[in-house]
Order: sequence, then C-alpha cells, then structure tokens
Amino acid sequence: MQAAVEAAPGWQARYRERVERMLGRCLPPAGAEPARLNDAMRYAALGPGKRIRPLLVYASGRAIGVPPELLDAPAAAVELIHAYSLVHDDLPAMDDDDLRRGRPTTHRAYDEATAILAGDALQVLAFEILADDALLPLEAPARIDMIGLLARASGTAGMAGGQAMDLAATGRRLEPPQIEDMHARKTGALIRASVLLACAARPGLPAALRGDLDRYGTAIGLSFQIVDDLLDVLGDPAVTGKGQGSDALRGKPTYPAIAGVARARARAAELAHQGIAALSAFGPEAGELRDFAQELAARSR
Amino acid sequence: MQAAVEAAPGWQARYRERVERMLGRCLPPAGAEPARLNDAMRYAALGPGKRIRPLLVYASGRAIGVPPELLDAPAAAVELIHAYSLVHDDLPAMDDDDLRRGRPTTHRAYDEATAILAGDALQVLAFEILADDALLPLEAPARIDMIGLLARASGTAGMAGGQAMDLAATGRRLEPPQIEDMHARKTGALIRASVLLACAARPGLPAALRGDLDRYGTAIGLSFQIVDDLLDVLGDPAVTGKGQGSDALRGKPTYPAIAGVARARARAAELAHQGIAALSAFGPEAGELRDFAQELAARSR
Repeated sequence: MQAAVEAAPGWQARYRERVERMLGRCLPPAGAEPARLNDAMRYAALGPGKRIRPLLVYASGRAIGVPPELLDAPAAAVELIHAYSLVHDDLPAMDDDDLRRGRPTTHRAYDEATAILAGDALQVLAFEILADDALLPLEAPARIDMIGLLARASGTAGMAGGQAMDLAATGRRLEPPQIEDMHARKTGALIRASVLLACAARPGLPAALRGDLDRYGTAIGLSFQIVDDLLDVLGDPAVTGKGQGSDALRGKPTYPAIAGVARARARAAELAHQGIAALSAFGPEAGELRDFAQELAARSR
Repeated sequence: MQAAVEAAPGWQARYRERVERMLGRCLPPAGAEPARLNDAMRYAALGPGKRIRPLLVYASGRAIGVPPELLDAPAAAVELIHAYSLVHDDLPAMDDDDLRRGRPTTHRAYDEATAILAGDALQVLAFEILADDALLPLEAPARIDMIGLLARASGTAGMAGGQAMDLAATGRRLEPPQIEDMHARKTGALIRASVLLACAARPGLPAALRGDLDRYGTAIGLSFQIVDDLLDVLGDPAVTGKGQGSDALRGKPTYPAIAGVARARARAAELAHQGIAALSAFGPEAGELRDFAQELAARSR
C-alpha cells in the first residue's frame, strides 16, 4: 500500500520541488558576471514550467528502485536541454514568439544575442552537471551512459533534427506517419531519454524491463505531442498561455490539422494506453508512470 | 633527434589531416535527413580552418606521451565547439558577419534558423563523441574528465560568458586587464582546455607537469587573441579573410586599440615567451608546443 500512497498527486509537487532546487543550485548565481547572460539563463530555466521531463526521470526511477537522490542531476540536465530549446525555438528567426507561459520570451525580456548565448550556455550546463561527481554520485560508466543518451536525444538525430524537420515542413502537407516521425524527434526523443536516464542509473537493470520503459517513453512522447497540437487548435489561450491556432496560422503541419480532431484524440488516447500496457511486468511501483501517462493525454494545458 | 624530426612543420599537416578525417567520420553523412541541417553542420565544421585547438590537443599529447589515436575524439570535440561558436557569433543578432574565411557564413549560405540549429547540434555532437566508447577508447573516468573540462570551458564561465562580456563591452572603454579577462574566457578557455584534454588522457600525469601545461595553455591563449586583435587592425584583408579594422568599426574594445600597437605586439611576444618558459621541465618531446607558441605569436592570418 506504500506505493499507492506515494503515487498520490503529491509526488508530482515533490519531484517538481526537487528539480527546481537542483536547478537553482546548478545555475550560475543571480548577479554573478557576466550578469546579463547569467540572469537570462536563470530566467529561462527557472520560469514557470510543468517539468514533465524531470518528473518522468524520477517516476521511472521509482519504478525500478532508483532513489531520487541519484536522479537530481539527470532530472536537472534534461530540463536544461528543454529550456534551452524553448529559448532558441522562440527566436525571431525560428518561431518568433513574444510570449511563453504568459511571460515575455527570453529574447524579448533580454535581447536576441543574449538569448542565443543563454540557450548555448544552458545546453552545455546540462553536460557539465552530468560530468560533476559532486552532483551525480554514480560510477563513471553510468554517467557516460547518461551523457551519451542525452546528447543523442538533443542533436541532429533527436530534438534539433526534429525542429529542422518542423521548419522544413512549414507550409507543406505531411501524412500522419511523417508527422509522427518528426514529433518522435522533436519532442519524443527527449521524453524517451528522460525514462532511459533513470535506467542508466541502475546498471544491472534487466534488458526486458529497460525495453518496457523504452516503449512506454516512446508512446507517451508521441501522445504528448499530439495533445499539444490538439490544445493549439482547441485550447483556451488563457489556460495554454499561447494564442489559439498559432501553429495553424504559421502553416505548421499538426496531427489534428491533417487527421482531424477526432482521430487525433483517439490516437493520443491509444498511445497513452500503449504506454501503460508496456508496463504490465511492473507492479504498483510503476503507479506514478501509469498515472502520468493518463494525465498527459487528458491535460488541458 | 627523432623528436626534432617529428617537430618539423609536417606535424601540423599530419594532425590537421587526422582531425579532419575524424570530423568527417563523426558528422552526420551528407544528404542524410534532415539534409539541410546536416549539410549546414558539415559546411560549418569542415570548411577551411587552422585547426589550432586540435593541433594543441595532439601536440600536448606528444609532450606527455599520449598517442594521437587516443586524442582524435577530444581533438574533434574541441573543434566542433569552436565551429559552433563561429556559426552563432556570425549571426545577425551577434557580430552580423557575411563572410568567414572567404566563404559565406553559415546563416548566409543557408538561413538563420538553420544556422542556429546547426550550431546547437554541433555543440552537442562534441559531447556525443566523447561519450562514445567506439570513438574514444579510454576508461570512463578519463572521458568524464574530458567532458567536464570541455563543458566548463564552453559555458558561461568560459567561451559563452566571454562572448557575452564582449557584446556588453562594445562601445565602452576597458582597461587592458579587463580586456585580458574577457579574452581569457572568450578564446582563452577553449585553448587552455585543448591542452588539458590531452592531460586528461593520461590519468597518472604528475600534477606539476599538468600545471606547466596549464600555464602554457593560458599564456598562449591570451597571446593568440592579442595577435588576432593586431591582425584586425594591421592585417591584409586578402590574407586574414575579413575586413581590416572591422572590430574597431563595431566599437569592440581590442588590446591594440587601448594599449597601442607597439605595446600589444610586445605583450603577445611576452606571453608566447612565458608559454615556452612554462615548458622548461620538458625535453624535445615538447618541441611541437614550443614551435607552435612562436608560430601563433608571429602569424599573419
């Protein structure tokens, strides 16, 4: 019954607090030189956020018996990668967004040059944290695994490549499988990496269990992005924090735009279900992951 | 006498070939999807370049008995970090340069969004390479050391922070020590890291020798940047590949602009001499490093 208690909604707030404390500790102190750059880094990384990727790191660790103390560094690292990607994606040459979660985007709050550099410095801070044995008390091979996982998920085969495909697809018609491929890189790779980072913290983990978690991460990563696209079409701007239909206005191919809202909804639910089904070998210790899959598919922001 | 033969100019061409072969192997293949991003990465990283940082990695390894086979990965990694920094520094929001080494800058050859993403993907590829045991056959702790060194040299305490200080200083008057502090981060950190990456490949290296190499790297990093500033004022654009006085036109504080050409020349030579003096405990095996310090201080491009 202990597991059921720990899987109550409070776990999300606890994990969120943990990672935010770790981020605050790892980011350069406010006011330290170069102050404008360091302040912009803190602004981008410590602003409001759902912390979905860190939550997945901790919840996956819970499922395989890795204590949260060993996961603070990878949880912070994956959030830093996510934060940097938002700063760069929002730039005028990319999505040209003025608002992000109800606040000015980093290049609006500071300036473009500072935003570019802040993104660059946030990305590399993720790897600095994983290489620091004071922050990540694991054997070197496990830390190397984490660094490799996070690097591959972030680069041209992962997130940066997905963003490039997204830009290339703007104004063009894609079929649902092509959209899913793009999403698998753009958002899916980092969500999947969040789950696998926890696995890297337990070197002896049976391959079958790692495979289950991998399938879970892949399925909910895709589900997450389809719901994101649905919220862009249907969501209340006051809740989502961005203008309704902003993707459609930019000519971005989205799942609901191509397949229709009903099919998109069904696909998101199906993927969440697949994610949960992948965890059938786990007991109540995977309760957080199961709840999270459902919550992500049903979310309204 | 073997050492003297190996320290002949041919060593530079040999090391350059090595690192370029490694870069070609590690970069995504030309034409692979997302093709525009991958092509831009290859354009930025494989274009003409002096490969100063990789040469320092190999020459430092030579001084402490690390074979080049163990240094291909860190040599490529440090060059990728350098290449990404040029792509981002050239962007319109930063230095707004159209030409780099006689070719269109990456954002001119492709577009701004692709250049931002290519820089991002080049930076993370550096860490992917160091985490890949097929590319770097060293024990995990040595690889973690390299990753930490490179990350710290690239982030807000190093290169990205130095670029932010450079932007903040534009149009302002700095004193020579402030300029040297800015340069120590902007270019110095990565040059120093090149030397220390080789040290990380020899875990048992006596601390005193590592300290000598560290002082060498710090001195020639500063010397290098002062010569860069001198070439901006005095250099032949046909040779340097950029417009004469372009830093001055932008209001960038440079060493010769503040201290005068004669004092800048003297300081660059003094630092090169300090770098060579730091190697007094080494024999002919440090010949490449000694030659390189003199060559960098006397270069015309």
